[in-house]
Amino acid sequence: MSRSETLGVAVIGAGRMGADHVRRVDRVTSGARVTAVVDVDGERAEAVAARVDGCTAHTDPAAALAAADVDAVLVASPGPAHEAALLAALERDLPVLCEKPLTPDAASALRVLDAEQRLGHRRIQVGFMRRYDAEYTRLKALLDTGQLGRPLMLHNRHRNVAGPPFFTSSMLITDSVAHEVDATRWLLGHEIRAVTVLRPTPSAHAPDTLQDPQFVVLETDGGALSDVEIFVNCGFGYQVQAEVVCERGTARIGDGHALVTHTAGRWGGTIAQDWTERFADAYDREVQAWVDAARRGEVTGPGAWDGYAASAVCEAGVRALEEGGRVEVELVEKPALYR
Amino acid sequence: MSRSETLGVAVIGAGRMGADHVRRVDRVTSGARVTAVVDVDGERAEAVAARVDGCTAHTDPAAALAAADVDAVLVASPGPAHEAALLAALERDLPVLCEKPLTPDAASALRVLDAEQRLGHRRIQVGFMRRYDAEYTRLKALLDTGQLGRPLMLHNRHRNVAGPPFFTSSMLITDSVAHEVDATRWLLGHEIRAVTVLRPTPSAHAPDTLQDPQFVVLETDGGALSDVEIFVNCGFGYQVQAEVVCERGTARIGDGHALVTHTAGRWGGTIAQDWTERFADAYDREVQAWVDAARRGEVTGPGAWDGYAASAVCEAGVRALEEGGRVEVELVEKPALYR
Amino acid sequence: MSRSETLGVAVIGAGRMGADHVRRVDRVTSGARVTAVVDVDGERAEAVAARVDGCTAHTDPAAALAAADVDAVLVASPGPAHEAALLAALERDLPVLCEKPLTPDAASALRVLDAEQRLGHRRIQVGFMRRYDAEYTRLKALLDTGQLGRPLMLHNRHRNVAGPPFFTSSMLITDSVAHEVDATRWLLGHEIRAVTVLRPTPSAHAPDTLQDPQFVVLETDGGALSDVEIFVNCGFGYQVQAEVVCERGTARIGDGHALVTHTAGRWGGTIAQDWTERFADAYDREVQAWVDAARRGEVTGPGAWDGYAASAVCEAGVRALEEGGRVEVELVEKPALYR
Amino acid sequence: MSRSETLGVAVIGAGRMGADHVRRVDRVTSGARVTAVVDVDGERAEAVAARVDGCTAHTDPAAALAAADVDAVLVASPGPAHEAALLAALERDLPVLCEKPLTPDAASALRVLDAEQRLGHRRIQVGFMRRYDAEYTRLKALLDTGQLGRPLMLHNRHRNVAGPPFFTSSMLITDSVAHEVDATRWLLGHEIRAVTVLRPTPSAHAPDTLQDPQFVVLETDGGALSDVEIFVNCGFGYQVQAEVVCERGTARIGDGHALVTHTAGRWGGTIAQDWTERFADAYDREVQAWVDAARRGEVTGPGAWDGYAASAVCEAGVRALEEGGRVEVELVEKPALYR
Repeated sequence: MSRSETLGVAVIGAGRMGADHVRRVDRVTSGARVTAVVDVDGERAEAVAARVDGCTAHTDPAAALAAADVDAVLVASPGPAHEAALLAALERDLPVLCEKPLTPDAASALRVLDAEQRLGHRRIQVGFMRRYDAEYTRLKALLDTGQLGRPLMLHNRHRNVAGPPFFTSSMLITDSVAHEVDATRWLLGHEIRAVTVLRPTPSAHAPDTLQDPQFVVLETDGGALSDVEIFVNCGFGYQVQAEVVCERGTARIGDGHALVTHTAGRWGGTIAQDWTERFADAYDREVQAWVDAARRGEVTGPGAWDGYAASAVCEAGVRALEEGGRVEVELVEKPALYR
Repeated sequence: MSRSETLGVAVIGAGRMGADHVRRVDRVTSGARVTAVVDVDGERAEAVAARVDGCTAHTDPAAALAAADVDAVLVASPGPAHEAALLAALERDLPVLCEKPLTPDAASALRVLDAEQRLGHRRIQVGFMRRYDAEYTRLKALLDTGQLGRPLMLHNRHRNVAGPPFFTSSMLITDSVAHEVDATRWLLGHEIRAVTVLRPTPSAHAPDTLQDPQFVVLETDGGALSDVEIFVNCGFGYQVQAEVVCERGTARIGDGHALVTHTAGRWGGTIAQDWTERFADAYDREVQAWVDAARRGEVTGPGAWDGYAASAVCEAGVRALEEGGRVEVELVEKPALYR
Repeated sequence: MSRSETLGVAVIGAGRMGADHVRRVDRVTSGARVTAVVDVDGERAEAVAARVDGCTAHTDPAAALAAADVDAVLVASPGPAHEAALLAALERDLPVLCEKPLTPDAASALRVLDAEQRLGHRRIQVGFMRRYDAEYTRLKALLDTGQLGRPLMLHNRHRNVAGPPFFTSSMLITDSVAHEVDATRWLLGHEIRAVTVLRPTPSAHAPDTLQDPQFVVLETDGGALSDVEIFVNCGFGYQVQAEVVCERGTARIGDGHALVTHTAGRWGGTIAQDWTERFADAYDREVQAWVDAARRGEVTGPGAWDGYAASAVCEAGVRALEEGGRVEVELVEKPALYR
Repeated sequence: MSRSETLGVAVIGAGRMGADHVRRVDRVTSGARVTAVVDVDGERAEAVAARVDGCTAHTDPAAALAAADVDAVLVASPGPAHEAALLAALERDLPVLCEKPLTPDAASALRVLDAEQRLGHRRIQVGFMRRYDAEYTRLKALLDTGQLGRPLMLHNRHRNVAGPPFFTSSMLITDSVAHEVDATRWLLGHEIRAVTVLRPTPSAHAPDTLQDPQFVVLETDGGALSDVEIFVNCGFGYQVQAEVVCERGTARIGDGHALVTHTAGRWGGTIAQDWTERFADAYDREVQAWVDAARRGEVTGPGAWDGYAASAVCEAGVRALEEGGRVEVELVEKPALYR
């Protein structure tokens, strides 16, 4: 397509996240419009599509992707449905933005990598949107200047007010720590080679059988440590913080001090209660960047390899949680397409 | 126009600010496109228009506004050219976003108010973009809850690394403090009724004849004080801070603590060097909000009355600077259209 | 006295402040002990003296100062009683630490200066204890390095939870702003030559006839401005903050961020509720420094001239409050003893 | 001794720390004086003793403790000399403040515990001075209120500009992390039951064979985790920070934001370069508290059991560093005297 054309986007999945992306592409993003909404629940697809002029509703992804006005695909369906959607998009050589995880496990992720390699060029971006957060990008830019020297340790905090009722102990790793897995790989430029999960006595405010919080230690092939406090029922707010310790200094993000009040014996500010407040801008930037790149025929964000690596690390993490001790991460050799 | 149509925008003025707005409407904003660029310098208009598909270049505003694909006008020309552009836009009943100042003085601002009143509905928004800054909007929202009680004082800091060479002592008020004049009126919901300007010994880093810094005290009709430190050659960074002192507490914005480093005996962070870093998001939000409202046929931002009031206060401020002492602000009675 | 001897201190005034100084000299300070307590209320003197081994109680200052074991005098009686106590101490050539104010007005302060000049050497230190606060001393040290360049403006905040019932509008200046008057003179090394007092609508939480808050602007003979927000019924905490704006940067103290908590949707910390928490260490350091200097026969802290200058500025401030407008400060020529 | 008498203190060890304690007792502390200085190097003892009126110098601790004017003992000699000094002090039933470590290993610490139990009452305080730091004591007080709920995790940072040349990898644990071992036990009220030491690639700025930084994870018998980043060649400053994560919130100390400057594109402040700046007040308070308690015949600070427990944890830590993996801590049953 020429640069002047508007990118027609099919959004697969019309749940909370999918509907939010439809709104974003329609109302926030420049240069794109939603031309199709897909959901296994046809009524839900209809309801979301109805909010956008000229947008069609579908239950079958393949039919949607075949439409003439679909130039790109945004996958926001549940993880188990990702593989089929991704393979369908690759078959039509369409650029894809796929919400994390790429697929639920490393084996299926490898099948997606194989398909993309057969296609011969990269088409998939994975939704690790922290790479588009203003604070994370400033931290990354600072690290890349080298002025702090080599990174030695990364301390991460990831706290939610309360986890959803269906959350299991292993989902703390696969759904939450997955973000720190990607952030560690991206910020440091290292792969992760081993995972240890420590289990403090759970909070009384966590559901009975949930191991919450957990303290996860990632070891990288560059010799760095990245520790992650994940605490999904911390009760007080949504917090994502990162502190990199380098040879010549440290850098820290996530303290969120924008508005400071002094009232009734206390100074301070409010804490975001969920990710929509903390990361709304990051989602906006992510989708805009994907649209801009797609209109140029490029992929500039985290790709299928990053999705696969995160899945492999999380698999090792779940084993470390369940079995105790240190679990090594097994990665296939990195294919030429992703080097 | 129907909501599904894209808003065609004529940008008047193709200097630094105008060119940036062209880029913004073209690449950032959803639902709008630049259809015409106007500048007295035809080559400059051509150069900027050439970056946008299907955009025409003009030297005559009236001709540009007459084009069929022009639905709205963004005025970014020098202040003295604003009145004519605004009157032309009102004549065609087009929504306008006019960079501040509305016009260079209160008398010409009143003529614009008259024209808008004759038209019978509000069409003009003035570019006081702090109202769209995330921190200012949080501060305004907090004040509007009433939980801090009535505002008594507002302390403002406005610092630039270095003023442009053509800056005069009175421009510190008309070009810089103008923002705090609007912020004071908006945050407190008061009109300003008197201005005093105090003159510390100028910094050795300011040009020889420039009174820089200045300390401006605004008195409001609600009995509040708003003091403004304006320092355009502070040398170290671009800083805009505001602290409201209320009956039950204070609230402060502008400390900008996003990324904190610890290096070589110092902790801290960087300071923005100009407004593009501090307020880029605010400009994006301002223009998007204006586009969204214009497509609905509405004006939601600061209007012509706000532009007039700011001009009147700045006129009094310049007199206070030049004559010393306290100068009262004279405002006409607020017309019904703006109540 | 030789350095190895313990300094015998007579404390004049056994009210809250005097009793606290008795405890301080007895239990905190090295090298001094309380040998006499004086109060017009003999029972109060007895009660306080009884807490210290070997300490005598008096109602007559002259008798107390005549005792053999009195080497130095700490004056903590009400302001109107200071002049007599100071003159008695000078007569016996004893080192004095006098709580502020030196005396209640500039005329009586001048009589004390005269007496000290007749004595021929400096014996009086005035209790401007902010000069001993860790943050203020760091700020002063930073300014004295010159690395920030010349100071242009000083912004001060001085807030109390609630003023005592007997507080009058002029006492906001004489009792509270007096500290900023001294801090301004000390930090900048300038004398103050004019005062303006601005009066926002009083807080609904202030007593009916009290002008609270006030906004005081001090102009110095070095061309700097020092503004002071004084707000004695702010309701939320005790806060003393200062920000110096210099030609090459700013420096700020008083934010008090020692312990940061994150709870229930808020981050932040507690605010001290009165000066005992904020300045207890400063009082300890002040008295220790005075004792150490007195044992060496020296005066190193703020002297009688500083007490006089503060009284003269506060007198002008009260006139500015009552009459409106800008009031010039009249100071006698600085005697040789204080240069 | 009666409360009115001054406590005569023998200081054992006249190196940097011992000489500083002599100065502190002589010039800062109320109610105590140095009556004897002991050092194996007689000239050093003489030199330090000469600074204090009436103070004698010794090379033999036993002789010093036998002097009539010695009421208490402050042990600041090297660790291997502690056991003999402590046993001598217990023999004379003198109160002791012993710089950490109590003794270099758990076995010798147990011998000291035995001697104190034979004496039948507690006489020994160990120099874990963080318990006297203003920020740590506020954190402890907050935790003790219970308002944050049960502590789940404690994140510690301990950074030095540069380690001394003789520092070995195991000394990072025994000399540095020993402080966090005590802080963890004290803040949480738990014993530590296992230690894991993780080894990132050492900093290029650390000496060749030194494992620096290390990341130490302590598990407590209360089910909490305490992680410690120890980095003795961080290059940029001396930093001690602690963040407790509880069931209802977090609390953090050590950010040190007292004086904030804005200069040349950066905001922030200085970082202390060694412990004398960060913890000087804590040492002052520690010694004053010990003197006050000793004059009352009491021990109120961390005792011999705390010294023993820290030694036992550090022994396990050194094994964890050398052998890898998780090492359990073996403690004897807590004797009745220390319950």
